[in-house]
Amino acid sequence: IEEGDNQAVYDMVAPLHPADIAELFAQAPVEIRRPLAAAITDLMSGEVISEMNEWVREDLLKSLTGQEVANIIAQLDLDDAVVIVSELDAQKQQETLQALSSEDRAAIERALSFPLESAGRMMQRNLVAVHENMSVGDVIHYLRQNDDLTTDFWEVFVVDPSHRPIGTCKLSKLLRMPRHALIQDIMQPEQTLIPVTMDQEEVALRFQKYGLISAAVVDESGRLVGMITVDDIIHIIRDEADEDILKLSGAGDGDINEPVLDSYKSRVRWLITNLGTALVASTIIGFFEGTIARMVELATLMPIVAGVGGNAGSQTMAVTVRALATNQLTASNCVRSITRELRIALLNGLTVACVLGAGTWLVFHNVLLTEVIALAIMSNIIIGGLAGVLVPLTFDRAGSDPAVASSIFVTMTTDAMGFLTFLGLATVSGLTGA
Amino acid sequence: IEEGDNQAVYDMVAPLHPADIAELFAQAPVEIRRPLAAAITDLMSGEVISEMNEWVREDLLKSLTGQEVANIIAQLDLDDAVVIVSELDAQKQQETLQALSSEDRAAIERALSFPLESAGRMMQRNLVAVHENMSVGDVIHYLRQNDDLTTDFWEVFVVDPSHRPIGTCKLSKLLRMPRHALIQDIMQPEQTLIPVTMDQEEVALRFQKYGLISAAVVDESGRLVGMITVDDIIHIIRDEADEDILKLSGAGDGDINEPVLDSYKSRVRWLITNLGTALVASTIIGFFEGTIARMVELATLMPIVAGVGGNAGSQTMAVTVRALATNQLTASNCVRSITRELRIALLNGLTVACVLGAGTWLVFHNVLLTEVIALAIMSNIIIGGLAGVLVPLTFDRAGSDPAVASSIFVTMTTDAMGFLTFLGLATVSGLTGA
Repeated sequence: IEEGDNQAVYDMVAPLHPADIAELFAQAPVEIRRPLAAAITDLMSGEVISEMNEWVREDLLKSLTGQEVANIIAQLDLDDAVVIVSELDAQKQQETLQALSSEDRAAIERALSFPLESAGRMMQRNLVAVHENMSVGDVIHYLRQNDDLTTDFWEVFVVDPSHRPIGTCKLSKLLRMPRHALIQDIMQPEQTLIPVTMDQEEVALRFQKYGLISAAVVDESGRLVGMITVDDIIHIIRDEADEDILKLSGAGDGDINEPVLDSYKSRVRWLITNLGTALVASTIIGFFEGTIARMVELATLMPIVAGVGGNAGSQTMAVTVRALATNQLTASNCVRSITRELRIALLNGLTVACVLGAGTWLVFHNVLLTEVIALAIMSNIIIGGLAGVLVPLTFDRAGSDPAVASSIFVTMTTDAMGFLTFLGLATVSGLTGA
Repeated sequence: IEEGDNQAVYDMVAPLHPADIAELFAQAPVEIRRPLAAAITDLMSGEVISEMNEWVREDLLKSLTGQEVANIIAQLDLDDAVVIVSELDAQKQQETLQALSSEDRAAIERALSFPLESAGRMMQRNLVAVHENMSVGDVIHYLRQNDDLTTDFWEVFVVDPSHRPIGTCKLSKLLRMPRHALIQDIMQPEQTLIPVTMDQEEVALRFQKYGLISAAVVDESGRLVGMITVDDIIHIIRDEADEDILKLSGAGDGDINEPVLDSYKSRVRWLITNLGTALVASTIIGFFEGTIARMVELATLMPIVAGVGGNAGSQTMAVTVRALATNQLTASNCVRSITRELRIALLNGLTVACVLGAGTWLVFHNVLLTEVIALAIMSNIIIGGLAGVLVPLTFDRAGSDPAVASSIFVTMTTDAMGFLTFLGLATVSGLTGA
């Protein structure tokens, strides 16, 4: 279809929802994307662009001039516009900003001045704010008169004379009250103001916890400067959880549309680091070369001890990282969590030691070897369990993201300790007759 | 504070938001939770209970009678009530349902008849549906007259005479239109009807994709039976992403409030499985005992080849599992994804092989050993990359959840192939002089 007949393509795409058109681009092979865009230019609304996967979009926007990008951006809500502008390279960004109306430019530049991933970058400026002493009838009248107001709002914000938010009123409540009721009597007092500098992850947690649909964003002096709505939060919640999965495995941005070279760069860094930590384990084995030479079966069994311990560590780590990310794990229940993981690790260790011990006995008929491997795997599962909770907690306490580096350290610990306990016990127990 | 002075406790807790009270319970040590609940009985609103962590709640509800649970449930929205009832054991569930009004009981029993995690279980029945030929004024009048309608709605659903949804109208739009405008002229035609049996993950993806705030749920005959709102979706998005992290590491439910025995059961199953797959790798090493006996350094180096390959596999797997979960990876771009991962794996393999080769040369001054280890790690990174994309894709194609079992198979593959390529190459290359 993509070879020539633009009209046919256009007719097929026209009835689709903007989000579906955006998805179509991600699904289409790279070389077809630009011709496709050309065939359906007037369907390429701002909404399609802003729904697009960021890598697909970046690639498409490269072929446009600053003026063309500016035309797209002028149709968008501030928060979506900011995302797109911040993805452009410096020169294109400059051109685009020049081509915008001075009002849009000022708004975008102000948003860009806030830190990355902060509330200030996510907020929209199109919101409805009313004064506390207006009546329901006044508010409805105000809404009907002002055609240029957004329709994407679910609550009106009530502000005092110095434009500080003091409450919110759901539209459903507004509609159900008699016209003479005063806003200040029916509003809910504001409990959840979001400072412009708050991190987006924190904002998302607030929305989840209090079941918010929209929230007021305030500047340093407490004045209402914007609003964040729940539909923007949904993307953040998914992205933050995705990030944790991908960081735990060192897969970088991890988007299937990311250019190969970018993925390579972020992943190879992790693999090289992993090579370094594997060296630690390797060095430990090196100390016991004599032991292995005397009983080569040890080389066969040692990866089991290290591997299962590593797995026990990853389990605990996944639980801990997510509990930290969702603010469930705090100073007050941290000791309890460590004790909990320790108890689980003890049970797991005992069970696995019995199974592995029984298996070893059946194969080798060697009591000492059975004892050594059972004891080693039990210690290593307990070590893994402890490392899985302590490593992320330590990173979190130190102020760095526990998802990024924890898994390297946990695996290094369980590998190193697995080989050390197993080969060490084999040596000192006299198993190899030394 | 928790020892005696109930009044003081009450005064401290009273000003908190229900979600904060719920969190307080999760943070408090287990033995304090019941006395705390007793001290603040009349603050224990349905909202507090429904915001609670499920394990904490389950434990608290055990001490209540069916009648007491029913009193709590009567205050809740249907979707929250269904969650709580479904968590009770069979006998308590029966008692609770008996104690409810027949109307509530019927609604809950109907919801429970839908499959677990389906739209039918998540939906609320409190919604506002209006006829297409009503005017804006009629709708506002209807809303003002019916005091028992919910205030938790953001859109009204427009239905035809047989109660099939044909469109929605945002409240913001309703407020801005003149009273005489007809609903059918200002509504948006309905694009996203949710069948009662749709899986919650699918529902969440629709909400994300189309930026929905609420959606109509319809039964088999297309009639409007309920509504799902975005605040319920937020929890699902987080839970589903969390699940994937936890499944990938075999950590079961992975909640820090889960009882130790439950966690133990789900995790130990995984560790035992892991023991089985580790045996495969171990058996492969066993074939090469002769080789290792002749050159014990091989035992020192072999975990590096297996470990780094395993890491490369996990990276690819994390990316693939998330892309599958978010519907980004489909039949049409599956071949492209495999090629993409293969190219990244080639680059990664080349880089790591150079680094490790150089290191091996510096330590051992053995050209053949250097060649063997470089070739082995490069193959294993490529194998890991392929397994990381092919294993989850195969599970997905076969209709099972790729997050659950992929990581076991990927690790087994990279471990087994890592040992096989390294020790195999060492043997056939004549490195050990055999």
